[in-house]
Amino acid sequence: MTQTITLLNAIAAITGGDGVLTGEAGAPYCTDWRGRFTGTALAVVFPANTQQVSALVALCAKHNMGIVPQGGNTSLCGGAVPLADGSQQVVINLSRMNRILNVDATNYTLTVQAGCKLASLYAAAEQVDRLFPLGLTAIAPHCEIGGNLSTNAGGIGVLRYGSARDLVLGLEVVLPDGRIWDGLRSLRKDNAGYDLKHLFMGAEGTLGIITAAVLKLFPRPKSSATACISVRDPAAAVSLLAHLRATCGDKMSGFEIISRSCLDLVFKHIEDTHEPFKTQYEWLVITKLADVLAMPLDTPLREALESFGEGVAEFLVTPDEASAERWWRLRKNIAEAQKAEGISIKHDVSVPISSVPSFIAQASANLRNAYPGIRIVAFGHIGDGNIHYNLSLLDATKNTDFIAQQEHNVNRIVYEVVAQLEGSISAEHGLGQLKRNEIKQYKSAFELELMRNIKKSIDPHGHMNPGKVI
Amino acid sequence: MTQTITLLNAIAAITGGDGVLTGEAGAPYCTDWRGRFTGTALAVVFPANTQQVSALVALCAKHNMGIVPQGGNTSLCGGAVPLADGSQQVVINLSRMNRILNVDATNYTLTVQAGCKLASLYAAAEQVDRLFPLGLTAIAPHCEIGGNLSTNAGGIGVLRYGSARDLVLGLEVVLPDGRIWDGLRSLRKDNAGYDLKHLFMGAEGTLGIITAAVLKLFPRPKSSATACISVRDPAAAVSLLAHLRATCGDKMSGFEIISRSCLDLVFKHIEDTHEPFKTQYEWLVITKLADVLAMPLDTPLREALESFGEGVAEFLVTPDEASAERWWRLRKNIAEAQKAEGISIKHDVSVPISSVPSFIAQASANLRNAYPGIRIVAFGHIGDGNIHYNLSLLDATKNTDFIAQQEHNVNRIVYEVVAQLEGSISAEHGLGQLKRNEIKQYKSAFELELMRNIKKSIDPHGHMNPGKVI
Repeated sequence: MTQTITLLNAIAAITGGDGVLTGEAGAPYCTDWRGRFTGTALAVVFPANTQQVSALVALCAKHNMGIVPQGGNTSLCGGAVPLADGSQQVVINLSRMNRILNVDATNYTLTVQAGCKLASLYAAAEQVDRLFPLGLTAIAPHCEIGGNLSTNAGGIGVLRYGSARDLVLGLEVVLPDGRIWDGLRSLRKDNAGYDLKHLFMGAEGTLGIITAAVLKLFPRPKSSATACISVRDPAAAVSLLAHLRATCGDKMSGFEIISRSCLDLVFKHIEDTHEPFKTQYEWLVITKLADVLAMPLDTPLREALESFGEGVAEFLVTPDEASAERWWRLRKNIAEAQKAEGISIKHDVSVPISSVPSFIAQASANLRNAYPGIRIVAFGHIGDGNIHYNLSLLDATKNTDFIAQQEHNVNRIVYEVVAQLEGSISAEHGLGQLKRNEIKQYKSAFELELMRNIKKSIDPHGHMNPGKVI
Repeated sequence: MTQTITLLNAIAAITGGDGVLTGEAGAPYCTDWRGRFTGTALAVVFPANTQQVSALVALCAKHNMGIVPQGGNTSLCGGAVPLADGSQQVVINLSRMNRILNVDATNYTLTVQAGCKLASLYAAAEQVDRLFPLGLTAIAPHCEIGGNLSTNAGGIGVLRYGSARDLVLGLEVVLPDGRIWDGLRSLRKDNAGYDLKHLFMGAEGTLGIITAAVLKLFPRPKSSATACISVRDPAAAVSLLAHLRATCGDKMSGFEIISRSCLDLVFKHIEDTHEPFKTQYEWLVITKLADVLAMPLDTPLREALESFGEGVAEFLVTPDEASAERWWRLRKNIAEAQKAEGISIKHDVSVPISSVPSFIAQASANLRNAYPGIRIVAFGHIGDGNIHYNLSLLDATKNTDFIAQQEHNVNRIVYEVVAQLEGSISAEHGLGQLKRNEIKQYKSAFELELMRNIKKSIDPHGHMNPGKVI
């Protein structure tokens, strides 16, 4: 007890009293975005700069106290909240560290603190006629770049620009003993030793706390065209993707697939959404071309679609972003529509793009076999081989019991198909608490051993985000 | 002695007798490309598959024998040859493992063994109308992809496609104890745990031996335009680069700068090379636009150059690759022209793109101050902030003495400017033996400690490529 008070006083001495929340005041930061994971923390602390993060981490290490790094807390797998096992932990929330440190339009870089909201980076880039392309539209107002990098966030821009780690030139990281690694470089090429920055991205805060980053900026597209396409099946979508890449190349900046079950939910629950075609098709694809040159892109997109042949019944093309938004609303509102319908078992899996059709076919067959009449809501970033694959019963009232009793078995059925196709059970959301145990069945013992060795060598006492990832 | 014979027999039992070279027969593999580093090896071994590599590494570990992984041996910093300190080492050369394992045009991936020559990957990609964009034109016929990945090779395509590590989806690696890590995945998104593959790329074989990789393929450009531009100075070149990226975007697939001293050497030593302009300008830039759409690119390139204004005296644009080659020959023959002139002190440094002008100005001033009349040959990938910066005396006969006596001091003058500008003393060639000691003065003690900890945790007995990098 006295030790706790001593620690809280020491924390307050670092951040100032207004930088520490305890008890009820801290509770909102101990529950994740979906309200699925709730833990307890000795304190939730808001450092104002890297030196304070460094001092806090050193202090917690000295007191053998678990540290939970937190950004916008929009992780969907419990990676950014304390454990519920009663262990004493301190949440270090970086939201106060939200300064943009440098914008270099000539070098096409943006240097930022970890607590910057993604939305604020979009704005900073736009001010100098540049683009920061990490496309997490749904949570952009809430999530913070430190969390985006720690989880190597994906989103709808990956096909064109890569995932979060691909957008980073340099990092500043506070290591588990409190020391600061200054890797805040702005270099396009640097082969002077091991690449440390990639270790911390995707580690979900288990190896250190990312406090700042140098990010790549890109030229702003000046022209675009969007198509809504009815495809016969996922196999046709995958061939169409390869065809459009071969004909339109890097102009492709999104290729999303939507199944009929998604559309039914969206039309039922989301206002002002409509069938794009007279016919109700089973599968739709929405894709966008963009280019920095001011040039008409609807014609090449139309020509590329006409030259595809088999597998496309109808398509619509528009150069007008506003009218394209009609179609994007069908894609962007799937999650909300599903929430309105009730809870479901969600998956975020990836397979090689060429295996997406096999995944959807095999997983769906196995599930319908085990659970006749199950609702399968499949959609997502087919351009990255990343499918969001959500499962529920048609009768929403039965889903609470269904999930309680069957979630583990449903996961097993889905993940076994993913494993057969050499895919990943976590494409873009990470492991966090949600998949920490499950991954042990789908990664080789040797790879898990290599991960544990790295964890041990960087965080020998296991202070950093305990109970997550590994 | 008997122990040596036992080991050689055990090696031959793994690879077959024809897979082992000793004495004079192995000597060519113990000297690097530039003939600058020569060591001795107990044997040079040519495994035929990953299992043989695994068995060889386990055997060497058992005998406490240093292992030198080797590909095409085109490293320019002694990273792929044994040490000259008399220590017993075994060179494991992967050239026999040159099979292309899979070409997936739909997934845009190429799965290859480490011993594949870069040139053979270009051909395999072209056969399915795809592009493998790692642009190392000079050494492509000789270098091997395993070495390209281990050194995170750069080249002229980085501006558009990134360096070697950016082109990799998955790796297979033999670890220092002989176990095989199968990370040979073809996934665009995978956030299920730590990203191990990036550890091995850029580690120059000190953490394990890359035996196979899954590489990204890209659509093949169908149209291009190239410009030769006289720029007032490096500052104008950097502004022009930012302007062209903003107006032409991802179409930019190369932006190289050449100084007058380079041109003089090329015209003197390389046949059929000519001034592109009537006036002899101090600085030339060669840049190329390429696009997958069949479209005229010379007009937009000309318009972009005309809209730039100040800092460009003259420019020429052609849509014809053959006639553009006239200009590229000026760039591609600099190294050969310099070799014809005699030896020189070479640097491969990088700084933020916006700092390139300061680097060239400050380094040149400090050098001319210390060595009046020194010849400064500056050129390279200004689009990546990567300058090749070579120094010699005008009187070639004096260079042997000059280099012997002054190389260390010349390096110090150059690297101190690099350090002030937060650059890297090795942009794309790695550390190898050449810069292993020098890096200690230009990296923080903490970063070196983190590197050593990783080395210790993965290669605790230090068998893997001893005396390189760290």
